[in-house]
Amino acid sequence: MTNVAILGGSGYTSAELIKILLRHPDVRIEAVTSRQEGTPAVAELHPSLLGRIDLKCEPFDPDALKRRGVQCAFGCLPHGVSAESVKPLLERGIRVVDLSADYRLRDPKVFEAYYGEPPHDIANLSRAVYGLPEVYGDEINSADLVANPGCYPQTAILGLAPLAANKLIELKGIIVNSSSGVSGAGRTPKLHTHFPECNESVSAYAVGTHRHTPEIEQALGDVAGQEVEVLFAPHLVPMDRGIFSTIYATPTRPVIEKNLTALYRECYAKAPFVRVRETLPATKDTSFTNFLDVCVKVVRGRVVVLACEDNLVRGASGVAVQNFNRMFGYQETTALM
Amino acid sequence: MTNVAILGGSGYTSAELIKILLRHPDVRIEAVTSRQEGTPAVAELHPSLLGRIDLKCEPFDPDALKRRGVQCAFGCLPHGVSAESVKPLLERGIRVVDLSADYRLRDPKVFEAYYGEPPHDIANLSRAVYGLPEVYGDEINSADLVANPGCYPQTAILGLAPLAANKLIELKGIIVNSSSGVSGAGRTPKLHTHFPECNESVSAYAVGTHRHTPEIEQALGDVAGQEVEVLFAPHLVPMDRGIFSTIYATPTRPVIEKNLTALYRECYAKAPFVRVRETLPATKDTSFTNFLDVCVKVVRGRVVVLACEDNLVRGASGVAVQNFNRMFGYQETTALM
Amino acid sequence: MTNVAILGGSGYTSAELIKILLRHPDVRIEAVTSRQEGTPAVAELHPSLLGRIDLKCEPFDPDALKRRGVQCAFGCLPHGVSAESVKPLLERGIRVVDLSADYRLRDPKVFEAYYGEPPHDIANLSRAVYGLPEVYGDEINSADLVANPGCYPQTAILGLAPLAANKLIELKGIIVNSSSGVSGAGRTPKLHTHFPECNESVSAYAVGTHRHTPEIEQALGDVAGQEVEVLFAPHLVPMDRGIFSTIYATPTRPVIEKNLTALYRECYAKAPFVRVRETLPATKDTSFTNFLDVCVKVVRGRVVVLACEDNLVRGASGVAVQNFNRMFGYQETTALM
Amino acid sequence: MTNVAILGGSGYTSAELIKILLRHPDVRIEAVTSRQEGTPAVAELHPSLLGRIDLKCEPFDPDALKRRGVQCAFGCLPHGVSAESVKPLLERGIRVVDLSADYRLRDPKVFEAYYGEPPHDIANLSRAVYGLPEVYGDEINSADLVANPGCYPQTAILGLAPLAANKLIELKGIIVNSSSGVSGAGRTPKLHTHFPECNESVSAYAVGTHRHTPEIEQALGDVAGQEVEVLFAPHLVPMDRGIFSTIYATPTRPVIEKNLTALYRECYAKAPFVRVRETLPATKDTSFTNFLDVCVKVVRGRVVVLACEDNLVRGASGVAVQNFNRMFGYQETTALM
Repeated sequence: MTNVAILGGSGYTSAELIKILLRHPDVRIEAVTSRQEGTPAVAELHPSLLGRIDLKCEPFDPDALKRRGVQCAFGCLPHGVSAESVKPLLERGIRVVDLSADYRLRDPKVFEAYYGEPPHDIANLSRAVYGLPEVYGDEINSADLVANPGCYPQTAILGLAPLAANKLIELKGIIVNSSSGVSGAGRTPKLHTHFPECNESVSAYAVGTHRHTPEIEQALGDVAGQEVEVLFAPHLVPMDRGIFSTIYATPTRPVIEKNLTALYRECYAKAPFVRVRETLPATKDTSFTNFLDVCVKVVRGRVVVLACEDNLVRGASGVAVQNFNRMFGYQETTALM
Repeated sequence: MTNVAILGGSGYTSAELIKILLRHPDVRIEAVTSRQEGTPAVAELHPSLLGRIDLKCEPFDPDALKRRGVQCAFGCLPHGVSAESVKPLLERGIRVVDLSADYRLRDPKVFEAYYGEPPHDIANLSRAVYGLPEVYGDEINSADLVANPGCYPQTAILGLAPLAANKLIELKGIIVNSSSGVSGAGRTPKLHTHFPECNESVSAYAVGTHRHTPEIEQALGDVAGQEVEVLFAPHLVPMDRGIFSTIYATPTRPVIEKNLTALYRECYAKAPFVRVRETLPATKDTSFTNFLDVCVKVVRGRVVVLACEDNLVRGASGVAVQNFNRMFGYQETTALM
Repeated sequence: MTNVAILGGSGYTSAELIKILLRHPDVRIEAVTSRQEGTPAVAELHPSLLGRIDLKCEPFDPDALKRRGVQCAFGCLPHGVSAESVKPLLERGIRVVDLSADYRLRDPKVFEAYYGEPPHDIANLSRAVYGLPEVYGDEINSADLVANPGCYPQTAILGLAPLAANKLIELKGIIVNSSSGVSGAGRTPKLHTHFPECNESVSAYAVGTHRHTPEIEQALGDVAGQEVEVLFAPHLVPMDRGIFSTIYATPTRPVIEKNLTALYRECYAKAPFVRVRETLPATKDTSFTNFLDVCVKVVRGRVVVLACEDNLVRGASGVAVQNFNRMFGYQETTALM
Repeated sequence: MTNVAILGGSGYTSAELIKILLRHPDVRIEAVTSRQEGTPAVAELHPSLLGRIDLKCEPFDPDALKRRGVQCAFGCLPHGVSAESVKPLLERGIRVVDLSADYRLRDPKVFEAYYGEPPHDIANLSRAVYGLPEVYGDEINSADLVANPGCYPQTAILGLAPLAANKLIELKGIIVNSSSGVSGAGRTPKLHTHFPECNESVSAYAVGTHRHTPEIEQALGDVAGQEVEVLFAPHLVPMDRGIFSTIYATPTRPVIEKNLTALYRECYAKAPFVRVRETLPATKDTSFTNFLDVCVKVVRGRVVVLACEDNLVRGASGVAVQNFNRMFGYQETTALM
């Protein structure tokens, strides 16, 4: 049995995390913290949790968490804010899965270029392991601090890893065209996520400048052992959940579709949540699951990879629990099937 | 040619109004006012209007509007705020179609009971005509001030008017169960209209207490010549536009469905925008039009009326232009077909 | 461990059932039958099940199911067709949870009036228990044949049961106004469920004549010990899942809202899946769960009950597993939390 | 005044066409033909047209159409079927705007490669003008037969034309990543367009093999005066209307974003329906209009063009009327603003 705390209880990722952890036979949710005024019941913030969790939100107090036996904290706070909570937890020996971007990028300069300020906790940056189990699994097992990956990057990284690892594609000029459901934008109401604005509409945003770009490049660079350059173009589509990425790469030598599919199957043979398919996927096939579906095609001289996932489960809270399972020695799929 | 101004240019009703008026052969949009900082282009607030209107928003200045020959103003401001603009316009002889609730209720006490404060312009209350052309058409023609009706009330009033006028139903205990698309909640982002909150969900709100209740009762009372009491229950459904009302009434004597249908056809024979149907309607049949579809059924000893409309066109900006057409002597359907 | 079979593997309820049963620690899915040509993999019919179930669909063969140790069958076939499979299973001592309408109505004449033909298996009608655990729980425990309830009726019956049992409302003239997501219409493509037809639209159908009417009346009649008459008006709304019912009843004597809420809490104190709320519910709060949320209001002299659920889980496959758990002695909530 | 006929009255493009033509001051809809049984009222097939058009569908009879003074026919039939109607009309001197694919591709071999059979009317192929007014405007003016363009190709062709004409991009290796609302799939119910299948989902289809590929290549080849090769990947997104294309091209020499924007503005200075924007577009900005919005970005060494439109108006029926206006000497924007 592991005692856990969730930091930042009001957003979508924390609600999703609670739902998953309530199914985990070896987890006890000890605390949910929030920066909100007062101590609202968690189920008041998330009516879907009525009758499922009795906790009230509480202010963040790392000593109290330590005292109450919390062994792992899940950080669901915005970047910047998150690091301020992670630091005192690590000092007290509480392991952390941080869902924010604070520890994802190893190079502080790259972080600053994309986030407009230096990382808030440079000291712990080198302790952090990028929490993509299919790539960094062994390191995750023993990590104290896991930087849970962004939602979009997982589709791009796992969609391209077999090709990058085997140098089957040009590592510059990769195009990642992605579409996301609106929950990916968080729970704070804004005009562009106001229902009548984004319903019945597709739009692009942050084309070529999105903060998930360097995450993709860093991880694929690790896989390839070489610098990678990606043009990433995200889009907003009118649905709650789901990310669909269509990835275009130029092969370095003639490739055959069915051989690539076989390569993918081999690469992901031990990855319980990656489903290599021959049919074109749909985000709905992965909705409310931790699966990431991937299909590789060769058309018109290009390799086109189609990858999709549920952005809140696989893209955030599901993979966080997958990382947690590894860190604490549980079966990787516990609470996630 | 009539010069018009639109007050409060940033919301959905003003955008819809502009689109309709741009099709009106005898209208010139002279000004769009806004309480926003600066003077943003109207098309900047509403990108759908790019290339269609060159105006910039301007601060409200009744003298300037008068000077520039504005003959009619459409008020698209929130209640309370709206009356403050209407007063000086009327003083300067500019006629007004006010889309807010400020002048809809004749009885200031009823207004106060539902809006929590007395009406802001009691002096002009008696000048106002409730802008439902199918009921108050003649008075609208000569009105200086038209209180454009609420979106929900139109379905209830027109759905029941033939029955109420002919005393075919009990006037107490009427139930109006309505569903609205999310644009009915306005353009200001709030949690309950944030896409991932209201998408894939139906919810009820303000059951039995909604502010449109007294509008329905006042107009049906006028039609029946007797007090009417309605239990109104609105719901939010995940779509942009459309209101669907299912209305339950108890007949005062045995009624036959096809006779009621004939009665409705007769009552609305001269109403170009009311479509009496024998088939059950769908809001989509009325989307982006000024039509209000109505079907009357007799089942299990009750009269059930089904009425629907587009809440932004028929429910607000379309009927506003219909009223304007009557006030300025244009054909009622101009710009609306 | 209980071996189960699922009959009719291509629809939404069977896919949902499989997902729930895969989480059940004491269930083994032995067979999925289908009337489809050939023996397609279940995951081919439902790509969301890829990598989660290896079974192929097989033709229905009751002897083979018996031989392979199947103890319980879930019938996911259309009414009429379903009874033809249930009969031979019962003869072989296999218990059945039938999700069709074939055994829901005790009175064959009522069945015929609504379904246009007599029930297909009159002989077993009296063995069938209506599978609403909160009302018929004890009988379900020992039943061989459970007639799983319709999706709409559950909201109406559980929404009204405390009032009906205590004679707090008139039992004639009850109005049930319901809205359903489109999955309630099944998986066979039809024009009215074609995306561009039903998206961005609300419509009514089968007003006062829907087949779920007699189910509601039968169960509420059992609860009240008296005949009940309901006017049921279903609507289609553009979402995948969810049923929202707004129920209007006339109190037989003065009632106070908070007392009614207390009564509901008491009535459902032992029902793990009924959540009595003071806040107005939203279908989304119940999505992908087996919860049924209910809120009771007293407004304008009426009792208004608001009840909602996920039509595929609580409305069909979830309650089927809840029934199964009772029949086979498992904890009622197993696989459903 | 021009008398027109619409061939194939049951689909979405014909309903849209009727709505536009009803606003055209110089058009009289003389006939709507249909291959359906009997002669259903047009408003029975499309309830949104109730009270707006009194015509009944009639069988196709070219002699009768000629006799009744029809000068222009709009073909809304499927490819193959359409050509069989176009032939006899042309023989009788009736000009045609054909919305099918039958006359879009000049090279019969290319047609056969993509459609699996040779074109049905090779004789008239050379008479056909590809109906994209911004590229082939002058030829359209005098054409007897206009092959109305596909929905997707318009975004790609107009999105790239200024670059292709000026040889600013490599003409091989262009990537067109598009998303379409579901009405693009037509009105015949199928499993993949059944609401609960495609709602809340994004999927890809026909990646690299879609029939609109050669249209794009043919028109861009005309513009560039050189062979063009495009990798086209369409996606289905859960909305009624709208196409969003994100187009990736490699510049042949260093380019500056604002210069490209200026070039686009110049190229489309006389195109009333192309809106060159500096802000990223959204399909909703173009919904229910004939506008095509385009924005050009230079990011990470690539030119990325974002183009969107309403697939039923600009993508089909609106541009058909734009073509008609040119053919019959009306102002290009008539009925379309």
